[in-house]
Amino acid sequence: MTELDFIFNRRSIRKFTEQPITDETVELLLKAAMAAPSAINSKPWSFVVVRDPVKLQAIRAELLFGKMNAPCAIAVCGDLRGLKTQVIERFWQQDCSAATENLLLAATALGLGSVWCGVYPSQTLVKRIQAGLGLPEKVLPLNIVYVGYPGEQKDPRTQYNPQRVFRESFGQPWLGEKP
Amino acid sequence: MTELDFIFNRRSIRKFTEQPITDETVELLLKAAMAAPSAINSKPWSFVVVRDPVKLQAIRAELLFGKMNAPCAIAVCGDLRGLKTQVIERFWQQDCSAATENLLLAATALGLGSVWCGVYPSQTLVKRIQAGLGLPEKVLPLNIVYVGYPGEQKDPRTQYNPQRVFRESFGQPWLGEKP
Repeated sequence: MTELDFIFNRRSIRKFTEQPITDETVELLLKAAMAAPSAINSKPWSFVVVRDPVKLQAIRAELLFGKMNAPCAIAVCGDLRGLKTQVIERFWQQDCSAATENLLLAATALGLGSVWCGVYPSQTLVKRIQAGLGLPEKVLPLNIVYVGYPGEQKDPRTQYNPQRVFRESFGQPWLGEKP
Repeated sequence: MTELDFIFNRRSIRKFTEQPITDETVELLLKAAMAAPSAINSKPWSFVVVRDPVKLQAIRAELLFGKMNAPCAIAVCGDLRGLKTQVIERFWQQDCSAATENLLLAATALGLGSVWCGVYPSQTLVKRIQAGLGLPEKVLPLNIVYVGYPGEQKDPRTQYNPQRVFRESFGQPWLGEKP
């Protein structure tokens, strides 16, 4: 056990039990998501929480790589309706991705499993999810996060690769003799 | 204290002490970063760790909103040199943002402070940082993360806003009478 296990324990979980997710749990997950940093604190996000079995089935039908049997799906969306338009348009993908990672880590810490299914920038998927969830044109679904109690276990891991780390400038290896 | 304090404790820290960051600490941070999920596990990232005071000063000079006095700067870069080109080009921003959030949370858990300074998609900043760090054309700096021991304290927080949460479909409020 290390102090970073909360990160290494997060794995993409694609099988879930039927145990439902309560409102209280959803709120904890979204409190975590909305604790993420954002460019000039613009908070360019909205979230749609789906637990209705018919709506869940409709989402699964739309996503080629997102057919998991979770009892809850959360659409993390870039909300471009706000002020600070120029900054939001530039950074919403990054901000909403940080929020998503917080959501996944929070799920893990609460004993849940989760998986991030990409939507944006596929215009086909964006339009399908916008139609399915009634999203306005300026609310862009970045992804669908499935959440539930895990039906599979995976070992903690990093995929640390020192060859992707450079010392002071690109091309100067991290490992090996130091200057 | 809650089980999600590791998230709520992360705040943008912009003042640092002079205490240096060791190689071992950098490696922990990057093990956390590289534990992030990525589209089809493409891991489209590279990292440049800068601690040389002259190079740090050069980075600070280039970034209008990134002049913090930290002893360490880590450039989180999208590395588009890999295979799986089409997927990487679509999702590298999201993947590298998730990795960055992991890095920030790991820093917090280790008692460090950190702040995410946006670079991409500003083409001006991208070119300046590419030049300063010797990055190839296909290695795009998403941001500069400054890391160090905190010289300021901030209270934990979420910025949870239930008005940005919808139940089953957009426009149907999270709070209020349930269907």
